[in-house]
Parts: sequence; structure tokens; C-alpha cells
Amino acid sequence: MITRDDLMSLKAIVGEQCVSTGESVLNLHSHDESYHNPVLPDVVLWPHSTDEVSRIARYSHERKIPVTCWGVGTSLEGNPIPIEHGIVIDFHQMQKVLAVRPEDFQVDVEAGVVYKELNKTLSRYGLFFPPDPGAAATIGGMIGNNASGIRTVKYGATKDHIMRLVVVLPGGEVIRIGNRARKSSSGYDLIHLFVGSEGTLGLITEATLRLVGLPANFMALRVTFPEIKNATDTVFKVMSSGFSPSAMEFLDSNVITVLNRDRSLAMEERPTLLMESNGFSEEGLKAEMAYIEEICSENGSTFIDKGIGQTERDRLWEMRHLTFESLKRQHPGLLPLIMDVAIPLSRYSDMVAFIKQEVSGLLAYVFGHAGDGNVHVIVMDVPANSSRWAKVEQAHQRIVEKALAFEGTCTGEHGVGIGKRGFLSDEHGDSLELMKRIKRLIDPEGLFNPGKIFS
Amino acid sequence: MITRDDLMSLKAIVGEQCVSTGESVLNLHSHDESYHNPVLPDVVLWPHSTDEVSRIARYSHERKIPVTCWGVGTSLEGNPIPIEHGIVIDFHQMQKVLAVRPEDFQVDVEAGVVYKELNKTLSRYGLFFPPDPGAAATIGGMIGNNASGIRTVKYGATKDHIMRLVVVLPGGEVIRIGNRARKSSSGYDLIHLFVGSEGTLGLITEATLRLVGLPANFMALRVTFPEIKNATDTVFKVMSSGFSPSAMEFLDSNVITVLNRDRSLAMEERPTLLMESNGFSEEGLKAEMAYIEEICSENGSTFIDKGIGQTERDRLWEMRHLTFESLKRQHPGLLPLIMDVAIPLSRYSDMVAFIKQEVSGLLAYVFGHAGDGNVHVIVMDVPANSSRWAKVEQAHQRIVEKALAFEGTCTGEHGVGIGKRGFLSDEHGDSLELMKRIKRLIDPEGLFNPGKIFS
Repeated sequence: MITRDDLMSLKAIVGEQCVSTGESVLNLHSHDESYHNPVLPDVVLWPHSTDEVSRIARYSHERKIPVTCWGVGTSLEGNPIPIEHGIVIDFHQMQKVLAVRPEDFQVDVEAGVVYKELNKTLSRYGLFFPPDPGAAATIGGMIGNNASGIRTVKYGATKDHIMRLVVVLPGGEVIRIGNRARKSSSGYDLIHLFVGSEGTLGLITEATLRLVGLPANFMALRVTFPEIKNATDTVFKVMSSGFSPSAMEFLDSNVITVLNRDRSLAMEERPTLLMESNGFSEEGLKAEMAYIEEICSENGSTFIDKGIGQTERDRLWEMRHLTFESLKRQHPGLLPLIMDVAIPLSRYSDMVAFIKQEVSGLLAYVFGHAGDGNVHVIVMDVPANSSRWAKVEQAHQRIVEKALAFEGTCTGEHGVGIGKRGFLSDEHGDSLELMKRIKRLIDPEGLFNPGKIFS
Repeated sequence: MITRDDLMSLKAIVGEQCVSTGESVLNLHSHDESYHNPVLPDVVLWPHSTDEVSRIARYSHERKIPVTCWGVGTSLEGNPIPIEHGIVIDFHQMQKVLAVRPEDFQVDVEAGVVYKELNKTLSRYGLFFPPDPGAAATIGGMIGNNASGIRTVKYGATKDHIMRLVVVLPGGEVIRIGNRARKSSSGYDLIHLFVGSEGTLGLITEATLRLVGLPANFMALRVTFPEIKNATDTVFKVMSSGFSPSAMEFLDSNVITVLNRDRSLAMEERPTLLMESNGFSEEGLKAEMAYIEEICSENGSTFIDKGIGQTERDRLWEMRHLTFESLKRQHPGLLPLIMDVAIPLSRYSDMVAFIKQEVSGLLAYVFGHAGDGNVHVIVMDVPANSSRWAKVEQAHQRIVEKALAFEGTCTGEHGVGIGKRGFLSDEHGDSLELMKRIKRLIDPEGLFNPGKIFS
């Protein structure tokens, strides 16, 4: 429990204005966008600097108060829910772009920077930060979850774009990790240890991101297929032909139906692929896209929209990015259980077919970053209706088990949080114990984001 | 000290034939290709399986005997020298390609597989493993050092291509890490903790590698410049224009002179860039290469050899790969001190200019994977000549300090081994202590490759 003395001490660190125990503030920081039960923190802090975060961590250590990080709450697995109460650190006051280094394709940012805003800033330099989770996440949140998105198929996940980190460890020690060179073999790779650790090992306050040049040209395709298998086989065929599309998204006909309704569109309500390629030369892209079209036709595509210009393309990706919002809007009163398995591409068709079978009879939507073997399933239902929800959870269990049987993973990009903890033992076997030993080494008191990743 | 009982026990694990204390065998396993002093192991073992490696690790733990891994001894920083004697594990009996999975661009291998042989096998499937260190390294050695090479500028280092590992921990426990999906956010990233840890945390016995499709087309250029700055400025200009060449190598005129002599060539003895681009479409490549040629001309290139066909291209890369061998052959009796700094690309010209100044008066060769900001300097000399060698080491010290001042790294790809230990404190600051804590957590007795990475 936080005492009045604690509040006084915390106010001395971040300032009177940046400490809140107000009900609406606590409520806002009690949940993310998942169905997981909200838990109120005792206090929310808005530090302004690494030094202040360090002093908070030192205080939390002295008083054994849990600390959970908060970006903007767009997580999907309960990752930032303060399930043991205590302090929530909101990084909203740490939103500075510290330095753009266009000559080296790098940017230094504070953890609270929102990546969409960042990419607007970077576009003036002809650059962008490619991991593209759709939600208006913060950079700190993306690093915490190793977020990825529609561009990952070409450019990789967040972990592939982090060059340096400033991290506050339990107890308040500040360490600086990494360097500005494009490669290094110097000592242990601590960057990747902290990326994706969901705030359980350290509080990330600053990062240097590796950027990519905005492509000179792009071409996008929207392709519909008579049956799901035509679409999923096409995914495998295109990817195994060695192409590197800059996007390769699958949406089942249920998703298209909701998007049509929510956004007043008139797309054919069939299994659909959205694809994009980009590059330096228009001629090169044309040759590539012609080949991809051929693969689509061979796999029975019924419609190919290939004359997609900049505006329509932006609309296409906005629609894809906001799929989750559309689904929620079209199902008021229901909550989403979200699956996020990823499997080897050769199993993509089998995985999607298995999923469709498992969720039949449920209000389920299947889509995902197909080029990465990532499948999202969103089931909309009411957790309070326990018999139905048990069926939802059973499908979840069986779908993850199948993904693991295909040597895949229970979470391609959303992280473990609360929702996937139960699967880690099956997925990681004996190496899970090494993860726990590292957690105990760095955070022996278990103060940083307690109850996450590990059951 | 290894006793007769130890030898009996070790023979019981790997078989009589696969244990040696013979002088020539111990000598062979006492050094790598660097100038570092050889140290004889007590015994060399050739295990056949993960299980045998596990039993060796358990025995080493019971008897507190150091264990150092050995691929083929092509390291350049003393990484596999058994400086505290004990057991050397040679992976020569673990050379099986366990499974090629062309449909998922993956291959499962044992640690002793030699990557050049592997790429021959994979070429039949139209695939390759891109990190390309030149030397005939084993996959286990490449993983240990996070090796990279001429293709890294486009495809990344070894760390970017490891999907799964089988690792034997101190004490003998076997853990399996990772999965076959193209992405995952499931728990801590243990893969990257072991990649580049130089055998100090675990013995890697098997790996699943992520492969890339062999490109349909390529174009190569050899370009000479009047002065070094013309060449190094061109590197920065090409890379900051957003191109992703598949190779971007710099060689100073001293290197060209040695290559001409060693291989009976007649290249113009001036600062030189070797570049290559590859891709799906010939038209796209032509457009890209024309633009790159234009950048070269703007930067004062004096000669552009652009009609390079497959045979000449293979010769070009073989020549580049074997530069180190040519240097050694042309300087019999001398030993190489090798620098391997990497810095942000905007500092490439400044770094190379600084290096040339620091090594003037020494027998020095400057070259490297320029597109990654990686510079190699090889100084040939006689360590026994202490006053001259002191000058060599002083230049080394000052060059690394400059690279760190440019926010780079003391080693881009060769690892720390013995030779770069002294720089880690300057490079990593407070985060070095966390690396040491992880080492003590996993290997509290300090039995795995003792004396490496940390002083």
C-alpha cells in the first residue's frame, strides 16, 4: 500500500503536478485494450527524465513497491495492467525526439514518443521507422513488446531496429547499451535481452532507432479468392518464390464484411490478400508485381485490383490498421479474445484451416500478417457468459497447441502479458527456467511489472 | 590438470578414438589465426552428439575442468585459445546437415558444419546462408562470434539468421531455444544472448538457420579513385542514398598492391571500391547501378569496371575473401595485429583518414566492409620486436579510442576473444557489469571458455 509519506516522496521526485491518485486517472491506467480484468494502480507518475525514472526505481526498491510502465495502453495481452497495484509510470512527459541523424539513418527518442508522430517527423528527412503495429503505440511500448506489423515481412520487427537503449534497472541504476555502428560483436547482446521483456527487467527511457529510407516507388494489390485455401496457398507461393513484399496481409470474408459495414465500402466479401512491394526502380517493381499477379491467377484469384494509387493505398492500410477498432465498433458490448500465433509459412494454409474449424459457431474474425506466418483470430464475446467464454478459451488453447505442434509461437507480436503466460512452458520447455533465472538475477524482488510473462 | 582417470572417463563418453593428448593435436588446437600466444589444451575431444557434449559438460563441472569450443580455428582474436588449458571440444564429428526445409527457407545443422560446404548444399535448393565471413568457418564458430561479412550490408549478421539453438549449459543441462516462425514476442530473447557469447555461456551443438533465396540477377562494379577520401565519401553517399547493395567493400592501394603481387593481377593500385547489387529484376538493377555509377563519377572515380560477368565476379569475391591469406603469404615471418572497428557511416571518411595517419610508418593495410562502417586494419610485424610492436599496439589503442569517440564499437565482427578485452570497459561502461553478472549466473564456476571477453 502506498502511504501519504510515499506520495510526498514521489512528489519530491517528479513534482506535485505529476503524481495522481485521482479515480479517473487510476481507471485509465487499470486496463489495456484486451478483455483482461482491470486492476487499479495506487498511484500514477509522469516523470520527465531518465534521472527521475531512476529515482522512482530506487524509491520503489527501498519500499518494495511494484512498478509497471505505461505507454498509451494499446497492448492486447494485459501487458501494462498493474496486477499487483503500486506505481504506474506513464511516459507521456517523455515525448522528445532528442536528435534526428539523417546521415546515419538514426533517431534518438524518449520512450514516450508515439511512433506515428515520429514517422511524420521523419518523413521530412525521407526516412521512417518501419515496425508498424497499427495502434498508436509509443516507442517504449513497442520495444517492451517487440512490436511488429504490416512492414515486418520486409523490414523485420522492433528488435531489428534498436541500436542503443538507456535502461533503468531495479534499484535505480542507469545503464546505456549498444552503439551507433551498423554491426558489432562486442560482448553479450543486452539490447535483445531488454527488447520484448515487457518491462519486467528494466524501464526503457531512451532509445536510438535504426531507420530506413522511404522507398521511391511502390505498388499495391488487393486480390480476392473464392476460398480461403486459395488465398493462404498464394501467401506461401509468393513468399517461397523469394520475393520480399513490403506487406502481405490476409483477411477472411468475415473481416471484409465488417470493414464494408463499418467504413461504407463495397469490397467483394471473400478471402482477400493485400500486398505491396516497394523499391528504387519502377521497372523492377512492375516486373515483380506481374510475377506475383501470375501466382495469384494460378491460385484461382477472382479479382485483382492493381491500379492502386497513393490515396487509395493509404486508405487501404488505414482500413487494415483500424480493423480492430472496426471490429469493436461493430460489436458494442462484446469483448475481444485475441490470438496471435505465428507458424512456419509452409503450415499457413493448414493453420488457418484448423482455426476456421475451431472457431466455427463463434463470432470470429481471422486475419493477419500472412507473409510472416502470423495469424490473428479475434473472437468477440462476453466473458461473463461463462459457458460460452469457456468455449472461446478452449478454442484459444487448441489453436495455440496446434501452432506449437507446427513449431511456431503462441505470440507473434503482442507479447505474453497475462494472456499467454499459460503457454510458455509448452513453448519453451527447459529454457523457460533460464528466463526465470535471468528475471531473478536482475529483479530479485520482483518489482518490475510483476505477474507478467511468468505465471 | 587432467588425470589418467579423467581420460578414462572422457573416453567412456566419446569413445577411445575421439580423445587425444597427442602433441600435434594439442598444438593444432593451441592457436587461431591471430598473433596471440598459443596455449596447449590438456586434451582434445571430438564428440558425436549433443548428448555427448552434455556429458562432457557434466564431467567438466564435477571435476572443475575448463572447456573451450573449437570450430576450425579461423578466429582472429584468440577466441578459441584454451588459455586455462583443460578440454577443447572439436566439433569436427558433428558436421551433419540434419534437415533442409526449402519450403520455409530453413536448415537444421550441427555446429561443426562448415558454412562454405553448407552453401554448396543449399545452392541446389536455390537458397543460401548469407553471413559470409570469408574464412572457412564452422556454423558454430560463426554463431559464437556473431560473424558477418561482405553480404551483411544487405542481409545482416549471423544473429539475424538464427531461429533455434540447442545449447549445453555448464553442468550439462541441454536447452532448446526459439521456434520456426519468422517472428515471435514470446518471453526473453535467449537466442541473441547466446549468439556472440563466444562459448562463454553455453556450448552450441545444433542450430536452425534462416536462409535467403539466391538472387535471380546481380551486377558488380569495381571502381578506383584518386585519393582515399574520394572512395570513402562515395561509400557514405551511396549508402545514405538509401540503396541496399549486396556488397560494398573498400580496399586501400596497399591492399591492391599485395593482391596484384599475390595473384598476378594488374589492377590499378589506387583506393578501390567493390560493389554489388542483386535482385529479382535485371531492369531494376540496371537503374540502380546507373545511379550508383553517377555517384562514383561525382566523387571523382577514375575507372569503373562494370562489365563484370559471373566468372570474374566470383574471382573478385574470392580475391576479397582471401585478402588475409594473401597478406600473410606476402609477409612470411610476420604476424598480423588485426583491428575491426565499426563506426556510423557518416564518420567513415574521418575514421579511415585517422587510421591512415596513425599507421603511417607501419606495414599496414586498410580495407573492410565499408557499407557497414566496418574497417579492418592489418598491421604485419614481429611481436618479439617489442619497441616496434609497442608502436603497433599504441596505434591499435588510439584507433579503437577514436572509433568509440565516434560512438562505434571495438569489434564489428571478430568478437572480443583475448585481443579486445581491454576495450570493453570503455565501450560498455556500466552495462559491462550486467554482462559479467549474466556470465556468473549461467557459469558460476567460470568453466566455459575462461578468460575470454572479460579481463
